[in-house]
Amino acid sequence: MVNYPGFDFEVIHRTTADSNWPNAARVSKLKTPHGIVETPAFIFCATRGVIRGVTPAQMLKEKTQIILGNTYHLMLQPGAETIDRLGGLHKMMGWDGPMFTDSGGFQIFSFGGGTASSEIKGNRNNKRPKMLLNIEESGATFRSYIDGNIHKFTPEDSIRVQRNIGADIILVLDECSPYEVGKDYTANSMQLTHRWAKRSIKEFFKSAEGSSGPQALYGIVQGGVYEDLRLESAEFTVSQPYFGYAVGGCLGSDSFELQDVISMSMRTLNKNKLVPHPIHLLGIGGIADIWDGVAKGIDTFDCVNPTRLARHGAAYLRPIFAKNNQSRDHVNLKNSCFKDDDGPLDPECKCYTCLTFSRSYLHHLIKAGEITVIQYLAIHNVAFMNRLMEKIRSAISEDNYFVARKEWFAT
Amino acid sequence: MVNYPGFDFEVIHRTTADSNWPNAARVSKLKTPHGIVETPAFIFCATRGVIRGVTPAQMLKEKTQIILGNTYHLMLQPGAETIDRLGGLHKMMGWDGPMFTDSGGFQIFSFGGGTASSEIKGNRNNKRPKMLLNIEESGATFRSYIDGNIHKFTPEDSIRVQRNIGADIILVLDECSPYEVGKDYTANSMQLTHRWAKRSIKEFFKSAEGSSGPQALYGIVQGGVYEDLRLESAEFTVSQPYFGYAVGGCLGSDSFELQDVISMSMRTLNKNKLVPHPIHLLGIGGIADIWDGVAKGIDTFDCVNPTRLARHGAAYLRPIFAKNNQSRDHVNLKNSCFKDDDGPLDPECKCYTCLTFSRSYLHHLIKAGEITVIQYLAIHNVAFMNRLMEKIRSAISEDNYFVARKEWFAT
Repeated sequence: MVNYPGFDFEVIHRTTADSNWPNAARVSKLKTPHGIVETPAFIFCATRGVIRGVTPAQMLKEKTQIILGNTYHLMLQPGAETIDRLGGLHKMMGWDGPMFTDSGGFQIFSFGGGTASSEIKGNRNNKRPKMLLNIEESGATFRSYIDGNIHKFTPEDSIRVQRNIGADIILVLDECSPYEVGKDYTANSMQLTHRWAKRSIKEFFKSAEGSSGPQALYGIVQGGVYEDLRLESAEFTVSQPYFGYAVGGCLGSDSFELQDVISMSMRTLNKNKLVPHPIHLLGIGGIADIWDGVAKGIDTFDCVNPTRLARHGAAYLRPIFAKNNQSRDHVNLKNSCFKDDDGPLDPECKCYTCLTFSRSYLHHLIKAGEITVIQYLAIHNVAFMNRLMEKIRSAISEDNYFVARKEWFAT
Repeated sequence: MVNYPGFDFEVIHRTTADSNWPNAARVSKLKTPHGIVETPAFIFCATRGVIRGVTPAQMLKEKTQIILGNTYHLMLQPGAETIDRLGGLHKMMGWDGPMFTDSGGFQIFSFGGGTASSEIKGNRNNKRPKMLLNIEESGATFRSYIDGNIHKFTPEDSIRVQRNIGADIILVLDECSPYEVGKDYTANSMQLTHRWAKRSIKEFFKSAEGSSGPQALYGIVQGGVYEDLRLESAEFTVSQPYFGYAVGGCLGSDSFELQDVISMSMRTLNKNKLVPHPIHLLGIGGIADIWDGVAKGIDTFDCVNPTRLARHGAAYLRPIFAKNNQSRDHVNLKNSCFKDDDGPLDPECKCYTCLTFSRSYLHHLIKAGEITVIQYLAIHNVAFMNRLMEKIRSAISEDNYFVARKEWFAT
């Protein structure tokens, strides 16, 4: 393993073997220059350099370990140079803990033909105007979503921009090909991604002594929903001097296909038990998907859901507390069933919101259109995800993962 | 003075006499069942039972002493019974400190012919539909701003609703007559307000042993911009068994007229130096107006500005730090002059926002439409107002009020 000064990844405990289930779940410590992340962990999205609705101080109070900034959004506004001048994204946004950035590729390519979530979920119905103008060997050309200006973006650019942003963990640029393009396109796209990866690695190690402090590089496994391509891409990825790996690209059209894609990728990614690497699953944050992904060896997840749900008046709840919404992992507090519900939002949660307010009051705030309720719900959703991951880590440590999973979803 | 158990008002220090200036400024302790308010103090508006953009925990951290709920909004939604069932407004909204409610009258009457601020500022241009249907001896009839339903509201209703809401300090119902109605209407309206006041007092002492805990009653001085009416109303007010007094009604069309109205009212209100009563100025929060009002003996102020300005991207700053906005008491961070300004928002402020973020970053968040910036600016604006009042109290205590005032506005 290549030496990444300031970084380390140590597996503390693995689930005991049970041939009836996937059994690659592991509790680990991911060390970064800004602190240790106990994994499995959830990474919260600070897309434009801010968590929507929650301050860094509140994130910390609700036990958040790590957050993620989006290179695409940040390089367009306020711009990588501005971020660098303000001391890097950590200092700029007031977050002193571990931090991740993606490569910018996901947004560039997903804005090409569809929204971000429609890409990874294989949704073909999309009316968004075309923002991706051209993909060629050297890089991609796209229109800014802010002002329509045309930008050329190369693998080297992505590394340089991420150096300026200064997150602890950064990603190589990949072409994120959509679901509907078929196997031939996906195969060519994967090969291009591998060639870009080598250029990214070259640029990364060239600039490793740069001004933005030590960083660690993750590679991305592509290959869409095709088993042989996933295998080939995973083999390529583990052969490179990355600190960690991400499972990316098109992850299928539903949770079943998602779990298949994870299995295809993980077979190779976590084969080397002696020198384990941290493994991230890009853009997935459904509660059941997390339990299943962890069972297959995924260490970290990221998703905008905790704060996005809050903006829509929704809060995560275990099914047993979810009244008539037990089929989903959240409830909408606007629902009139909460109007006279004087109990706490989540009876087992110790976050500021659950310790302070009733469901009836939160319902009132949503009905009244009061913006502060977004903050209250976001605080809970953040605390909920952190508690979920804590529960998952305990379950692995105590060797009762599948019992704990069943209990979590009890109705 | 009538005994109000759990309440006290003690003047600690008065400005020394200087015949060139108004010299009634005083530092006092206003004791309530939920804690002591050091006055002069600013009261932050939690109109619908929530501070817009800021949690109670953040309010407390930025040294907030007291907040205000609006009876009109709260009785329509979620309703006084719901608030009572949830344990009163303190418990419902998670604020355990001193609290004020208005009577509901201001909104009922100001929604009649204009917006709230156009009433007290005498602005005649208003296109709002008529929501006030009738004013008669027994009370007022109005349409709900939420669903158009018709409600009858009496002085007794106001006391009963405020009992349910459970704030520490509550107000009698007054008719808040607009600027343009002229002297005859204002005189009749004042007389009606006085008759309603007597009914409010009767209801208040009848229900003083009610279930919502001990409360203190403030009367309201009316009389518009007319000196003899203000005098008459103030004389009436000080003759009643109130714990405190509020200066209300139409306060003139500009700051000069406002200061005249305050002077007319205060001559009587703070005449009794042996048994001082706390005096509140309703709905005024301009920085210069506060300095001038305190000089005339006003103890507390309320205004929506700190949080409203934040929602519009604006932050309070002393003129010396306000760049090209020195003529106003705030700056708008959206202004491009802040784009590359790496300094803190307010160099002398110790709030979370000023200690954590740069002007350039806050500008970026506003440009990006990120809602969290509302919170960041509101935190600062709250801290700023609390610091202003702390400065004012020190200046009174140190007998250098007019020097301190001049320093505050230095450019």
